[in-house]
Amino acid sequence: MPLGEFDLIERFFSRAGGRDDVLLGVGDDAALLEVPPGRALVAAVDTLVEGRHFLPGAPPESIGHQALAVNLSDLAAMGAEPAWALLSLSLPAAEEAWLARFSAGLYGLAEQHGVALVGGDTVRGPLVVTVTALGFVVPQMALRRDGARPGDVLYVSGWPGEAAAGLEQLQRAPATGDADPLVRRYRYAEPRLALGRALAGRASSAMDVSDGLYGDLQKLCAASGAAARLDLERLPISTELARRQARPDCERLVLFGGDDYELLFTVPPDRVASVEAELAATQGAIAVHRIGMIEAGAGVRCVRDGRVEILHGGGYDHFA
Amino acid sequence: MPLGEFDLIERFFSRAGGRDDVLLGVGDDAALLEVPPGRALVAAVDTLVEGRHFLPGAPPESIGHQALAVNLSDLAAMGAEPAWALLSLSLPAAEEAWLARFSAGLYGLAEQHGVALVGGDTVRGPLVVTVTALGFVVPQMALRRDGARPGDVLYVSGWPGEAAAGLEQLQRAPATGDADPLVRRYRYAEPRLALGRALAGRASSAMDVSDGLYGDLQKLCAASGAAARLDLERLPISTELARRQARPDCERLVLFGGDDYELLFTVPPDRVASVEAELAATQGAIAVHRIGMIEAGAGVRCVRDGRVEILHGGGYDHFA
Repeated sequence: MPLGEFDLIERFFSRAGGRDDVLLGVGDDAALLEVPPGRALVAAVDTLVEGRHFLPGAPPESIGHQALAVNLSDLAAMGAEPAWALLSLSLPAAEEAWLARFSAGLYGLAEQHGVALVGGDTVRGPLVVTVTALGFVVPQMALRRDGARPGDVLYVSGWPGEAAAGLEQLQRAPATGDADPLVRRYRYAEPRLALGRALAGRASSAMDVSDGLYGDLQKLCAASGAAARLDLERLPISTELARRQARPDCERLVLFGGDDYELLFTVPPDRVASVEAELAATQGAIAVHRIGMIEAGAGVRCVRDGRVEILHGGGYDHFA
Repeated sequence: MPLGEFDLIERFFSRAGGRDDVLLGVGDDAALLEVPPGRALVAAVDTLVEGRHFLPGAPPESIGHQALAVNLSDLAAMGAEPAWALLSLSLPAAEEAWLARFSAGLYGLAEQHGVALVGGDTVRGPLVVTVTALGFVVPQMALRRDGARPGDVLYVSGWPGEAAAGLEQLQRAPATGDADPLVRRYRYAEPRLALGRALAGRASSAMDVSDGLYGDLQKLCAASGAAARLDLERLPISTELARRQARPDCERLVLFGGDDYELLFTVPPDRVASVEAELAATQGAIAVHRIGMIEAGAGVRCVRDGRVEILHGGGYDHFA
């Protein structure tokens, strides 16, 4: 059943977000929002294209979830508190059932993190979803990519590689459903917001891992003007991944698989003990794993049990 | 010549914006921005799809210009001062020449209004351009759609209909170039930022006209819970438009043509004289035209020389 654009927006994307700092939300030319005093605004935008960031025919809930999740992950990587989101939705036809499921996925994640959808645009076109996420952080505590220094300990959160394994599973067997935990990890990334906030003002650098740990670590090194030693034997491999793949495949997925939305971060040596103790005590923060060290120089050096190893392949590059 | 995604962003979209309030711009997971104390953040997002918002083969400069212009127009309609923009660019191939021209169009307009591009995302996909524009306004002075009251005088800025005539010209004769002033009006909308700021705190309501004056006026009436009388003999018809089209066609273009990016606004009767005097004295503010009156009731009533006329057609609706 086709609907008019304005009915569409009204019906599916105008839930009140319950935030006092939204002076004016969906429905005017622009939203009016209050940033708390002493905080910097944090702004990120990311786009999902059908066939590239999600498979054709993906459950609409998962697309709605993922479009917001990848942006909240960027805010997490800055140590920010998320507040608001804007949605731009280009879609071929206005199907009510699809929109209801898409918006359920989007609002499900938004409500979990107290994010209000405050504006958007709906146009007819190919299926392309863009979300802008806005939040705030005390500027001196923001996590950046350029602060890693030789001697800092390198960490990654959670279980990278699981999402890429979920994607491979779907490519092999498209009918695999969300009951498969790896498929869920691919379709429903959990932005590491609690971890990011716990690291704000403490980690020396951070970024989110979206295009593969190895390639993203190269970017962090380049931004910081430093090198990294990556200890291959320390790569975190989840029980589920280890159960389903041989060790070399697990490592390939962890290093080069995309869509992890984990945090890669560094901690200066004199703060390691206190940060690890604090993270262990932080409600809702995910497990973190030491995977190496920042060194002087440039690039990423892979080491297994003390011996250098040469890796092939690289992070995901949309135009390579 | 294909380029990697990261080179692309680096090469075409990382000009420094020259704004002190950008604590961290393009290149990290998110931008860090400082909103001045006492101001609300104003946020808008709009998407352009090839074949719908611009013609296939449109000059890349015009696409870059338009993607930002339509968003700055939303900020103008709030009475806001623009500050920052984020770009999401989905494009089929990374062609250097296309990107250079697209970014020239985008930065040309950005620099004209002191807007810094602070973040973005580039993905391979169909040609879809989404811009998020951010700015600020003293919250009590923001222009909203819902403030029109019976007795307020209704205005529109500039020369609506010209852009739609430019589009019709291109559809008839695709080779028409930017030397045609109507084609320029279609391809290079000028957001009415100076006018919006001059109206902030003075107009009782405002919105930008993007989908046709008649349909957009209906939306303003609905938001305000009021009706409007539209005086057809007062519709502003530019010399250029009148020279090239018969009067009925001119009126059709003014009422139902899209892509004007003019401001539609209302002024309480006791402020009409001071607002008109002030606008006449405002550097850079465009001419404005009285076109009717807000009344009690609902909907838009068209009147010509005191007699009611029934119109056919309506504003642009992407899914109708």
